[in-house]
Amino acid sequence: MADSKPLCSRDGDPMAAEALLRDVFGIIVDEVIRKGTSASEKVCEWKEPEELKQLLDLELRNQGEASEQILARCRAVIRYSVKTCHPRFFNQLFSGWDPHALAGRIVTESLNTSQYTYEIAPVFVLMEEEVLKKLRALVGWSSGDGVFCPGGSISNMYAVNLARYQRYPDCKQRGLRALPPLALFTSKECHYSIKKGAAFLGLGTDSVRIVKTDERGKMIPEDLERQIGLAEAEGAVPFLVSATSGTTVLGAFDPLEAIADVCQRHGLWLHVDVSETWRRGLRLRSSQLTRLCSAHPRADSVAWNPHKLLTAGLQCSALLLRDTSNLLRRCHGSQASYLFQQDKFYDVALDTGDKVVQCGRRVDCLKLWLMWKAQGGQGLERRVDQAFALAWYLVEELKKREGFELVMEPEFVNVCFWFVPPSLRGRQKCPDYSERLAKVAPVLKERMVKAGSMMIGYQPHGTRGNFFRMVVANPALTRADMDFLLNELERLGQDL
Amino acid sequence: MADSKPLCSRDGDPMAAEALLRDVFGIIVDEVIRKGTSASEKVCEWKEPEELKQLLDLELRNQGEASEQILARCRAVIRYSVKTCHPRFFNQLFSGWDPHALAGRIVTESLNTSQYTYEIAPVFVLMEEEVLKKLRALVGWSSGDGVFCPGGSISNMYAVNLARYQRYPDCKQRGLRALPPLALFTSKECHYSIKKGAAFLGLGTDSVRIVKTDERGKMIPEDLERQIGLAEAEGAVPFLVSATSGTTVLGAFDPLEAIADVCQRHGLWLHVDVSETWRRGLRLRSSQLTRLCSAHPRADSVAWNPHKLLTAGLQCSALLLRDTSNLLRRCHGSQASYLFQQDKFYDVALDTGDKVVQCGRRVDCLKLWLMWKAQGGQGLERRVDQAFALAWYLVEELKKREGFELVMEPEFVNVCFWFVPPSLRGRQKCPDYSERLAKVAPVLKERMVKAGSMMIGYQPHGTRGNFFRMVVANPALTRADMDFLLNELERLGQDL
Repeated sequence: MADSKPLCSRDGDPMAAEALLRDVFGIIVDEVIRKGTSASEKVCEWKEPEELKQLLDLELRNQGEASEQILARCRAVIRYSVKTCHPRFFNQLFSGWDPHALAGRIVTESLNTSQYTYEIAPVFVLMEEEVLKKLRALVGWSSGDGVFCPGGSISNMYAVNLARYQRYPDCKQRGLRALPPLALFTSKECHYSIKKGAAFLGLGTDSVRIVKTDERGKMIPEDLERQIGLAEAEGAVPFLVSATSGTTVLGAFDPLEAIADVCQRHGLWLHVDVSETWRRGLRLRSSQLTRLCSAHPRADSVAWNPHKLLTAGLQCSALLLRDTSNLLRRCHGSQASYLFQQDKFYDVALDTGDKVVQCGRRVDCLKLWLMWKAQGGQGLERRVDQAFALAWYLVEELKKREGFELVMEPEFVNVCFWFVPPSLRGRQKCPDYSERLAKVAPVLKERMVKAGSMMIGYQPHGTRGNFFRMVVANPALTRADMDFLLNELERLGQDL
Repeated sequence: MADSKPLCSRDGDPMAAEALLRDVFGIIVDEVIRKGTSASEKVCEWKEPEELKQLLDLELRNQGEASEQILARCRAVIRYSVKTCHPRFFNQLFSGWDPHALAGRIVTESLNTSQYTYEIAPVFVLMEEEVLKKLRALVGWSSGDGVFCPGGSISNMYAVNLARYQRYPDCKQRGLRALPPLALFTSKECHYSIKKGAAFLGLGTDSVRIVKTDERGKMIPEDLERQIGLAEAEGAVPFLVSATSGTTVLGAFDPLEAIADVCQRHGLWLHVDVSETWRRGLRLRSSQLTRLCSAHPRADSVAWNPHKLLTAGLQCSALLLRDTSNLLRRCHGSQASYLFQQDKFYDVALDTGDKVVQCGRRVDCLKLWLMWKAQGGQGLERRVDQAFALAWYLVEELKKREGFELVMEPEFVNVCFWFVPPSLRGRQKCPDYSERLAKVAPVLKERMVKAGSMMIGYQPHGTRGNFFRMVVANPALTRADMDFLLNELERLGQDL
C-alpha cells in the first residue's frame, strides 16, 4: 500500500525524474535547436512508413523501460521528425522558431494548468486579457472581447456560432430547426475551415455561398452583393460574411472596406480570417504596406494566428471580438456549478472558462506574451519587414532565371511559381505543356524530401496545374536561403 | 536588408537563444519541479487581481527586454501560478505529473509540427495510430478508428456529429434543417459539455433529453427507455445516448450493459464519456474492480482523457471509434488540395488531417506514448491501484473523525464529503443546518487558498448544499497527504 513511496517516476525517485528531464533537455538543445536549425543538416530524414515503424518500435507493452532506453527513444523521435525550424523548411506557414516563445511553451507545459478559472490560473487569466487587449488595439478597437482557441478553424467556427446566436438567440436552446435557412458568404479562395465549420455547426456546406474573386484572388464586392440578393431570393437569411486577409495559397487580401460597406448595408456580421497573416496591426504604421489591411476595425470578429508568421508555436489562435455585450459568455455559457461556483471569494467574472465551448483549455497566451516582451513590438515589426524584403528579393532573383515562372506578382509573403524544367522551356505553346508542367512539382518534391535538402509545398489551383508556394516566414531566413531554394530546384530538376 | 543576420533571437545570436533556454529550464527544475512538488512549499501564492497585475507588469510594449528581465518574468509567472503538481493540489482531476509525459511534451513543443500529414509529421502519424490502437484494445475493440481532440468536450462533440452524420449523411451538405428534429439522451449527472456541444452543433440544448439517475448518480435505464418513447411521441428522432463513466462530481458509473441493450433495441449510437476516468482497460484484469466498466466494447464511441488520472498533461483527449467504414474522414473531410494533394509520392491515407474539423492539430500522442513506454502498462495499473487504495484510506480515516460526513460511499477516486464545523455538530435537526453547512466550504476554500496550504474543490449538487470533492489522482500522493487534508480542514474550520 502507498504509505510513503510516491510513484511520480518509475522507481519513485524524484532525483531520477529530474535527471531524466535534464538529459532530455540536453538532447533537445543538441538535436532540435542546434542541428535542427543548421543549414548543413538535413531538414528531414525520409523513411517509408513500414521501415519507420520498425525503427521506432512503437508498440506499447506491459513492462516499463529504463531511462537510457527512454532517452534513446527521444533521440529517435527527433531524428525522424521533420525539422520545422530548419532554414530550408518552407513547407508550412509556421516554419521557424523563437527562443522566447519556446521558453514560454515549456513553462506552460511544466505548470500544466487549465485556462478556466482565476482560482487555478490567476496569472494566465490576467495575461490572456492583456494579450487580447493588445491584439484588439492592433485591429483598431479600444474595447471588445476575445479568447484563444485551439486553432484557426475553431476560431472561425466560434465566429459563425456567435453571429447566428446574436441574430437568433433562440438557436442555443431550440437549435437551427427553429430558425429560417441561413446563408453565409465567403470567397472561393477562403480557407477550407469555413465549409468544414458550417457542416460541424449543423448549417451544412450548402449554407456557404461562394463569392467570386478577381484575378488576384480577392473577393469581388459586387458579386458578394449579388450573392446576397440570390440567397434572399431563395428564401435564405444572410447573416455573415467571412473575408480573408492573406488567402492560403495566393496570399490575397479581400477588400475589407468595400466588404464592410456591403455588410453594413445588409446588417451582416463581418468576420475576417487573418489566419494566414498578422499583417495589419503591427504593420499599421508602415508606409509601404498600408494598402494592405488585414484586420479591419469595422469587422465584428477577427481570427488571428500568431503561431504562423509570429512563430509563437502551435497553437496560438486568437478570436477577437468587437462585442462589448458579453456575447461570448451568453452564447457559450452553461454555468456548471462544480467549476464556476457563484459564492467564490473573488470576482467570478475572472472565471473566463464559460466563454468557451471547451471545458479544460490550454494556456496559449504565455508564449506570445513572453516573445512580445522580449522582442518588443519593434522586434516583431522588424521581422515582418525582413520577411517582405526577402520575399521581394526572391521574386527578383526568380525573374532573372530561365526556369522559373511566377504565378503572379505577390503582395504578401506567399510567392507562387512554377519551376519549368529544361525539357519544357520554350514549349509553352505545346498542347500538353500544362499537363506536363503539373507533373514536375510532385517529382521535385519527392526528390527533395528523399534528399532531405529542403521542403516546399505545391498544389494545383483552379485551372492552374501544380505550382510551388513558397512562404517566407521563418525569421532566421537570409538571402542565401532564397538562393539555395532556386539553386536546389534547378539541381533537382535538371534532368526533367 | 536581411542578407545574413537571422532574427531568431532579439540580438540574432543563436548562442544567446540557447543560453536563455538553458536558464529557463533551470528555473523550471528549481521552481516547478523541485519547489512546486514539495509539501513544505505553498501550493499557491494568492494575490488579488489588481495587485497581481502590478506584480506581473503585463503590458506589452514597443521596446524589447534583455534576457535577465525575461528570466525574471519567467520566475514571476511561475511564482504566482498555482502548482498543479503539488501534493496538496486536490482541486482538479489533472493534478500531479509524470516526468516522462513532461519530457514528451517538451519534445513536442520543440519539434512544433502539426499532426495533419505524413509529410511533416511522419513519426507522429504512425505513433498516434499505435496509441489509438492500444487504447481501442483496452476498450475491447480489435479494429476501429479514432483521433486525439483538443479536450474532452470537443471529443464529445465529435461523437454527436459523427452519430448524426452516420444516420443522415445529407446533414453535412444540407444542414439540420433538412433533417427531422433529433434527440439525444444523457443523465443529469453528465458533463456539461454535452449541452454545450448540442448548442454549438446547432441541435440546441432542447435536443438533450435528461435521463433520471439513481441515488448514486447512475443513469436509470428504464427512464432512458421512457425518455426515448416520450421523444418519439413528440416527433423527435432519437439518435444517440451519451453515458458517463465516472461522473464529474460523484464519480458515478452508468450501467453500460443495460444502456447498450436499450441502444441496440432502438438503433441508437452509444457514446461513453470516460473523461473523468480511464478505469477499464488498464484495470480490466483486476478482480476487485471489474464491477466497474468504464469503456464498453458495445459502445460506438468513447471519449477518454489520459490528461486526467494518467497525468499525461493538458491536453490529451482521445476519441475512439468502433467504426471501420472511414466515418471520420467521410464526415469531416473536405479534400483541401493545397494540403492533401492526391499525387503525393507516398500513401495519402497516411495524411490523417482530413479526419478532423480543425486544420492544424497539435501532437498529443507523444506524451502518452513516452510515459507508457517508461511506466509500462504495469506501472500505470499500479498507479490506479494506489489511487484507489488511498481513496479508501481517506474514507476510513474520514469516518473516524467527528467533523466529517460522507455524501456517499465512493466507488471511484472522487470522495465527496462535508466538513461539519464545531458549531454545527449535533445540530442536524436544526432547520437552518443545511443552509449554514453550505456556507462552510466557501469560507474554508478562501482560507486555504490565502494560506496556500492546499486546494480542494467544492460545489452544491442537486438539493445538497456545498460539499468538498476530493479527487485522489496525483500519483505522488501518500497517506500523509490524506491525513494532512483532514487535519488542515479541521485547523481551518476550528472557529466555525
